[in-house]
Amino acid sequence: MTTTQPSSAAADPAAGAAVKATDRAHVFHSWSAQGLIDPLPIAGAEGAYFWDYDGNRYLDFSSQLVNTNIGHQHPKVVAAIQEQAAKLCTIAPGFAVDVRSEAARMVAERTPGDLDKIFFTNGGAEAVENAVRMARLHTGRAKVLSAYRSYHGATAAAINLTGDPRRWPSDTASAGVVHFWGPFLYRSAFHAESEQQECERALAHLEQTIAFEGPQSIAAIILETVPGTAGIMVPPAGYLAGVREICDRHGIVFILDEVMAGFGRTGKWFAAEHFGVTPDLLTFAKGVNSGYVPLGGVAISAEIAATFDQRPYPGGLTYSGHPLACASAVATMNAMTEERIVENAAEIGEKVIGPALHEIAGRHPSVGEVRGMGVFWALDLVRNKETREPLVPYNASGAANAPMAEFAAACKRGGLWPFVNMNRTHVVPACTITEAEAKEGLAALDEALTAADAHTV
Amino acid sequence: MTTTQPSSAAADPAAGAAVKATDRAHVFHSWSAQGLIDPLPIAGAEGAYFWDYDGNRYLDFSSQLVNTNIGHQHPKVVAAIQEQAAKLCTIAPGFAVDVRSEAARMVAERTPGDLDKIFFTNGGAEAVENAVRMARLHTGRAKVLSAYRSYHGATAAAINLTGDPRRWPSDTASAGVVHFWGPFLYRSAFHAESEQQECERALAHLEQTIAFEGPQSIAAIILETVPGTAGIMVPPAGYLAGVREICDRHGIVFILDEVMAGFGRTGKWFAAEHFGVTPDLLTFAKGVNSGYVPLGGVAISAEIAATFDQRPYPGGLTYSGHPLACASAVATMNAMTEERIVENAAEIGEKVIGPALHEIAGRHPSVGEVRGMGVFWALDLVRNKETREPLVPYNASGAANAPMAEFAAACKRGGLWPFVNMNRTHVVPACTITEAEAKEGLAALDEALTAADAHTV
Repeated sequence: MTTTQPSSAAADPAAGAAVKATDRAHVFHSWSAQGLIDPLPIAGAEGAYFWDYDGNRYLDFSSQLVNTNIGHQHPKVVAAIQEQAAKLCTIAPGFAVDVRSEAARMVAERTPGDLDKIFFTNGGAEAVENAVRMARLHTGRAKVLSAYRSYHGATAAAINLTGDPRRWPSDTASAGVVHFWGPFLYRSAFHAESEQQECERALAHLEQTIAFEGPQSIAAIILETVPGTAGIMVPPAGYLAGVREICDRHGIVFILDEVMAGFGRTGKWFAAEHFGVTPDLLTFAKGVNSGYVPLGGVAISAEIAATFDQRPYPGGLTYSGHPLACASAVATMNAMTEERIVENAAEIGEKVIGPALHEIAGRHPSVGEVRGMGVFWALDLVRNKETREPLVPYNASGAANAPMAEFAAACKRGGLWPFVNMNRTHVVPACTITEAEAKEGLAALDEALTAADAHTV
Repeated sequence: MTTTQPSSAAADPAAGAAVKATDRAHVFHSWSAQGLIDPLPIAGAEGAYFWDYDGNRYLDFSSQLVNTNIGHQHPKVVAAIQEQAAKLCTIAPGFAVDVRSEAARMVAERTPGDLDKIFFTNGGAEAVENAVRMARLHTGRAKVLSAYRSYHGATAAAINLTGDPRRWPSDTASAGVVHFWGPFLYRSAFHAESEQQECERALAHLEQTIAFEGPQSIAAIILETVPGTAGIMVPPAGYLAGVREICDRHGIVFILDEVMAGFGRTGKWFAAEHFGVTPDLLTFAKGVNSGYVPLGGVAISAEIAATFDQRPYPGGLTYSGHPLACASAVATMNAMTEERIVENAAEIGEKVIGPALHEIAGRHPSVGEVRGMGVFWALDLVRNKETREPLVPYNASGAANAPMAEFAAACKRGGLWPFVNMNRTHVVPACTITEAEAKEGLAALDEALTAADAHTV
């Protein structure tokens, strides 16, 4: 272990209780019933670990919300934030600033193809918002196709409430979203029996959907390169290239959402590299600076950027290209390069995490499938390996979700902080994780899966 | 002057040129035609000023995008960011954290009434997004009424693209937005001749709109307490209380958007205080931490918070309650209290800016109206004081907008960075501005208005 373990002297339960009491009095939490949550007060974090006020340390197998790719409190990123804070905390988007220029240059250097212009946002949702707006204006079409089993952010209304001309280009923005099914062999929507068949059938399904929606009405297709929260379904060989070809044939903008998959998570800077595909727009956030300061953005192709060369792009936000955020992104990308952090994610996934998870799956009746790459893995937990019935129903809560809640509690008792979504646990540690840390976490996971096994039939 | 003026030795035009060249190669700017902009490279900022690489210093009468209420580089806020960066840069929203708890407590302490639970976001648009979602779920109704001449952010689509259950509660989020006319005597939609008549007629218009839309279909009415970018129209006495009463009568949620008006801008912590009105939801961003780190949020009434006590609130974002942002908000609120910054905004507005602007208006045929309070003022520029014809048409660009472009250029030549929108210039300096700085800026504004006068008839 290279991280600091807080000594028992550092434990301060009274301070933790005070933090929690004020939290419960005044903080309204995301995605939660406020009366049913019990937020753990956090005292500190470093590298792959964080700890509470009671002297408990957790190995972070969730990277928070899959964003701390560089681990907690990387000293080079912390120093960059401190230096930029001393120099210039904020400046409006209309100016040119050294760190904003450099962050854009460095992101453009890493994105595939000619995605060389960067529009910065505060996070992933706003990146997707702006990518969709660009696609609609570029094509003059309204509909956007996206996949079931996807997550692209949680915004939908603000521009429509606005009462000035900035509203006009976005007034129908939420109309015309059509969902289709992507490839996912383990739970195939197409009754396929091989990856190749799944790929062919998924592409045929997309073609049919486009034909029946009207290709000339479709502005964009948006996909997570590797869907994240929805289950880390690595697409079969040929699928994304097939979507690229379909988009080209119909003049549809291809948007890849790499908010979660980008910046090292899959063992490449961007997951698109695994598949040899360049989208027209690529959205990013999270790993770009590990969330040390809120930041996201869209990387834009030369063709789409040219659309807005003489015609104003009707979108923006006060903190676009925020100096503190850009400084942390520059430091993050530099540290990731210097310290071979993307390479570490690839190696640890291939040599340690992948093999160990497959071995674990063999021992546990509750593990239906292991899938992933890099530090981006999912265990699909089931009541029965033959029927593949999920361990808990889709979108379960309360008592129906008890098997997953028991599994998560077992992880935490073992010093492991898991990522849990529906019937899955995702193994998504920092890209910096060492072999020893990974093995520690995998052993705790192995142990905790016994709680899930108890619910198999 | 208390600020640092860069010495000519600090000028470094070559560095500025490099920053701009990289910007033009890789940064995609908000609300702009990329080929028609010429972003000024900024070398530094302090207090009420910022400066470029050529040795030019500008008095910031725009507060960037009306967000640096505490001025540039306030040492206490810079130190707080640096200290928090050393301690804990990021942590997921699900945990309890000392600075998040404290920021929520301090915001709740300052908001009116029982708005005591705080949901944090990355900025104003997401604050509005979540306020609207809360109102719709709380009421079970779909429509939202908002005003022409308003701005509430630029997001509209991401959640509808999402393909998991988090989409369901928001699928119709952008449907059912209905715009109505708010009070604005100078350009009355109601042919009113006094503030009282404008107020009565605006309330009657709102009542009629509600009656014809169906009160039982309306979830919320959202208003900027004092509309900002749309023109700083301080509502007449009784208007907001009248809207409050209408909302109560029909079970409609009243949302006040204080993203721009809040945190000292009007000479109070929140503009609602001027009118003795407490909304059900209040959105904030910008001044909460002067944008030093991206941050926004919603302050929630006890009644609406209770709706989500046993039922999950279906909204969230990775960086909700970001530690670095919350630490900067705590330091900002403390410094604003200790240094009487809100009081300064009130006093400088009443004693210096307001009287000077009225005097200036008397000298310039282009100034049709002066309106505002605190450090939140608008000059409505006209071609003719009698007809009130705006100096440039609504939403003009290119040649049609030349009179305003010439005025803005004249300000910059005089060392003043103005806020300009359509036919208006807004005088929106930092809340920390001194009398001497205000007078310097007002003198430059007075001089620059000659360029606008040249276009009067």
